[in-house]
Amino acid sequence: MRPILSMVQGPESLKHLTDGQLKALAAEVREVIIEEMASTGGALSSALGAVELAIALHAVFDAPRDKLLWDGGHLAPTHTLLAGRTESVSTLHHGAGRREEGASAAISEAAGFAEARALAGEDYEVVAVVDGGAVSAGVALEGLAQAARLGRRMLIVLNDRAFAPASRTEALSAFLSRMLAGRLYTTVRQDILTLLRAIPGVGARLAGAVGRAEEAARGLLAPGRRFHRLGLDYLGPIKGHTIRRLRRAFETARALGRPVLVHVVTRRGTGYRPSEQHPDVYDAIGPFDPATGRPTRQTARPTYAEAFAEALLALAEADPSVVAVTAGVGGLKTFAKRLPERFYDVGGAAQHAVAFAAGLARQGLKAVVAVPSEAIQRGFDQVLHDVCLKNLPVTFAVEGAGLGDDGGRAPHGAFDLSTLRLAPNMVLMVPKDEGELASMLEAALGLEGPAALVYPRGPGVGVERDGPPVPLEVGRAELVRPGRHVALWACGPSVRPACDAAERLAEEGVEAFVVNARFVKPIDNALLCEQARQVGVLVTVEENALAGGFGSAVLEVLEMARLPETTVHRIGLPDRFIEPVSSGALRRTVGLDAEGIAAGVRRALQDRPPISLRHARGSTR
Amino acid sequence: MRPILSMVQGPESLKHLTDGQLKALAAEVREVIIEEMASTGGALSSALGAVELAIALHAVFDAPRDKLLWDGGHLAPTHTLLAGRTESVSTLHHGAGRREEGASAAISEAAGFAEARALAGEDYEVVAVVDGGAVSAGVALEGLAQAARLGRRMLIVLNDRAFAPASRTEALSAFLSRMLAGRLYTTVRQDILTLLRAIPGVGARLAGAVGRAEEAARGLLAPGRRFHRLGLDYLGPIKGHTIRRLRRAFETARALGRPVLVHVVTRRGTGYRPSEQHPDVYDAIGPFDPATGRPTRQTARPTYAEAFAEALLALAEADPSVVAVTAGVGGLKTFAKRLPERFYDVGGAAQHAVAFAAGLARQGLKAVVAVPSEAIQRGFDQVLHDVCLKNLPVTFAVEGAGLGDDGGRAPHGAFDLSTLRLAPNMVLMVPKDEGELASMLEAALGLEGPAALVYPRGPGVGVERDGPPVPLEVGRAELVRPGRHVALWACGPSVRPACDAAERLAEEGVEAFVVNARFVKPIDNALLCEQARQVGVLVTVEENALAGGFGSAVLEVLEMARLPETTVHRIGLPDRFIEPVSSGALRRTVGLDAEGIAAGVRRALQDRPPISLRHARGSTR
Repeated sequence: MRPILSMVQGPESLKHLTDGQLKALAAEVREVIIEEMASTGGALSSALGAVELAIALHAVFDAPRDKLLWDGGHLAPTHTLLAGRTESVSTLHHGAGRREEGASAAISEAAGFAEARALAGEDYEVVAVVDGGAVSAGVALEGLAQAARLGRRMLIVLNDRAFAPASRTEALSAFLSRMLAGRLYTTVRQDILTLLRAIPGVGARLAGAVGRAEEAARGLLAPGRRFHRLGLDYLGPIKGHTIRRLRRAFETARALGRPVLVHVVTRRGTGYRPSEQHPDVYDAIGPFDPATGRPTRQTARPTYAEAFAEALLALAEADPSVVAVTAGVGGLKTFAKRLPERFYDVGGAAQHAVAFAAGLARQGLKAVVAVPSEAIQRGFDQVLHDVCLKNLPVTFAVEGAGLGDDGGRAPHGAFDLSTLRLAPNMVLMVPKDEGELASMLEAALGLEGPAALVYPRGPGVGVERDGPPVPLEVGRAELVRPGRHVALWACGPSVRPACDAAERLAEEGVEAFVVNARFVKPIDNALLCEQARQVGVLVTVEENALAGGFGSAVLEVLEMARLPETTVHRIGLPDRFIEPVSSGALRRTVGLDAEGIAAGVRRALQDRPPISLRHARGSTR
Repeated sequence: MRPILSMVQGPESLKHLTDGQLKALAAEVREVIIEEMASTGGALSSALGAVELAIALHAVFDAPRDKLLWDGGHLAPTHTLLAGRTESVSTLHHGAGRREEGASAAISEAAGFAEARALAGEDYEVVAVVDGGAVSAGVALEGLAQAARLGRRMLIVLNDRAFAPASRTEALSAFLSRMLAGRLYTTVRQDILTLLRAIPGVGARLAGAVGRAEEAARGLLAPGRRFHRLGLDYLGPIKGHTIRRLRRAFETARALGRPVLVHVVTRRGTGYRPSEQHPDVYDAIGPFDPATGRPTRQTARPTYAEAFAEALLALAEADPSVVAVTAGVGGLKTFAKRLPERFYDVGGAAQHAVAFAAGLARQGLKAVVAVPSEAIQRGFDQVLHDVCLKNLPVTFAVEGAGLGDDGGRAPHGAFDLSTLRLAPNMVLMVPKDEGELASMLEAALGLEGPAALVYPRGPGVGVERDGPPVPLEVGRAELVRPGRHVALWACGPSVRPACDAAERLAEEGVEAFVVNARFVKPIDNALLCEQARQVGVLVTVEENALAGGFGSAVLEVLEMARLPETTVHRIGLPDRFIEPVSSGALRRTVGLDAEGIAAGVRRALQDRPPISLRHARGSTR
């Protein structure tokens, strides 16, 4: 069926194949990727775009002896297939897509490998593969500059996905690619020619001579152009779907013995007509029919991101001072189309996004920064010192907090509540559903200072929406269910399972208050202390690390209110990294589903049964 | 005495002065700066280097109508003097040096200002002044790229302190300045000439002709060279101590109506012989005699940073796998000299530093990253995902945590314990003195995974050191003083005042345990729970935000150990930004001196006097 792939027992098998066989292998790999993603969904377009790149890398380099590092998950599917059962290749963020594209630390890590090799006197190759979008984050440039300075032999392969969605808007990657891709060279040459022509009398003739001479010299110039002062060799652009060319480029680069940037241009979606035609759609696709490309499962529920985008557009249309800045979050296409003069896409430049928004806010605008959970961590210094220190009205819309519900493709946002609540002046909100997200955005834009809304990736809970968002009072929680024996304080996506848990507990005679916390900062101290005095047992529930999270904030409130007699039981994520697997299973594992929450309440009550409950139970028996 | 300065009533006064008067003003400003810093100490060299720059900016631009933004504190002393009593100029991080150099967000903020101006249809100038070192942080490049892309009229003034300590090592700033300063232009020109010469027969003649023609064209080229594709105009390099030249450059730049980078070269320490001769020394100088430049107050106590540097060198000399990476921390000069092949100074590139160290560690080296408290926040994403996720043996030496003791020049590190303890796999240590710092470094290097040591700026406590560091057991606290009625758990610099507090309390009949926590993660659970059971009242003390800090970690331990009966009282920094003032006064204000700690203990005991104490008091009465 797949004769070549079935022979591949690991990357070393590729060494014995001809270019023709490798090409056939690429076709087989594509078939498998399409087949598998048809049932799971995933970033199909990017995976298909990197097939030849991954094959050529393995054909030239000798993993795991040679070290291949990459950010983003594009190479992962092909790599996993080629690795066969060996799983022996050293990879940076292999397989599960633990990293978002754009995290961009591969160059820095590879520079570390190259130094370690020199210190140990060893002799392997080091290859960093970075996504074109990744270089819009400053860390990629930091790494590139040091790699150039250190001058150690290494390859930096820039996977320039020519049709990537942000390619026209990511200023820094464009800046870099112009600088490195020889276009600056060309420009400077043009400048010189222009200057020569401007010299009276002889200019035109001289310029012509230079032009012709350079034409003749082009053979010397390409393909290895060197920017001596920058310390980097450049090879490219290389067509990313011809294995022969890729091989030759990698072999040439390897022979140079210096830091070399190999610029590879790939087309997302290559080799599957539906994804070639709609690369964006097939880069975040659910299960589909491989024959037609049509989705096999319809999700009627809008995502949190869609609800956010819709609410933001409505608010911005009503208020000309509202401005949107996005750093690696999609979904604001309609905003960009309708209000282009108030829309800024800065690609992966999260630190810049935050400081830029601070600048906008200082001049009277209401800036909303849409940013993935991972990226807000990179901009935390700016959140603290550029926004919160000056108490500026900047709203952070943090996507991907908590366990999410996107089938485990993206990392979990376990630290957002813990970090964002540290910032003085911050108002930190967690919506229980996509409707509340809209209300919270409106509340945030009404503030004089900074706010953050954190919400999961993937579909919302499917609430009915009619009319405008309900206004919220800052610092006021919502009592969702009355109770008697115990109070369940839940955050965001944990509110629904907490309600379900309360149902189960009611059947056992335990009447649990359920509170939708809404605000992690400021917490509704009045209600919290009232319930602490009234029931004495509080259970907190959050999709965030237990360390420093919402539950800890509750402990802090009780300590400051001098209510140590209260029993608190916290439910949340443990102190370890959580593999990005399907969130349904994961919620069960960590006890964040209804049953887990109910079990936590039972445990808390067992420790210290409140008198009211003992009476209640006594009377029913 | 100072005739011109005394006439200055604010920046607008400068408009009426001639270049000659401005030059005289610079001399007067210098006198005042030297006089004032002679009594307080400070970053004298950098302040003296920026005098003409600040004067010229105010002479050309019309603050506060025009917006001047800057990072770092170099311009602040001159600016404060010129502002007179008006204080009306909009500044980014004015005066108190709240920002370290290298934070580099001024370009991004200025881009925000320029956009806001366009949206509002207003017409002021926007000027960002960035330190040359600042552009080694990726965020500066992110900002520069977007400024170029947006194309709004703004000035970016690069204060290139030619003799700054890190100027030879900061790869990214060198990279940028080469790229922008026209040296790349020159290189490309050289490349072309070389290529032309290589053409058989005619090459040499052609090259000669081009050289001569370009010579003739130089008038057209300078001073406004434009890199069209990059979208930035470039002016420079401008001599930074001639007000006439600076004025002309700023006026030319302003007239261009586009984003312009003005490259100004200044010499630190200018105008004062001692600082001209030893710019490094006078950039971190204590009080001195202005006549001789000699320090007036000798500090015999070595700083934490010195103790760290000494310990690191000793450990590295004994173990060839130990490698040092520094991102904006000085003090490793001896290491750099003795073990240059294992020393990396990456300037302000904190994110890169962390990922680079991860790469080194993955190949078997023990990487130690010395980084200021502010910078570790910028690298937090990499700390989590590149180091802790893979459980790599990287040690972070975080300088500037807590209130410090450097006379209020640097920002306080209020968030280090809160953020670093979030990272799974991290071992987080806080030394009570500089001797323990050495022991902790040794313990960290013995680990298989990540560790962080956080310690203050400024002098240590002056411990006697004889022999090698005492080995520490990970996760084990130190019982510093036995007690009976209450347990004081203190972190790092709070251990000494906690001991003093215990002395005072003893005089009142209260016997307080004092525990040096040593490890914020993992906390010594066994001792903590034992004491919770034994005395029932715990007081935690830390120079860190109360939100999510050490005290919260203690609350979490007690919750997880199901010991809710314990009374905990936490002492630490409140939920607001703290001005960088002298730390002695500050400790008093926030209750972190001995008396404040004693008062906290009294309060905790009042809430819930332990039975043992009631007995004790009963028996003594």
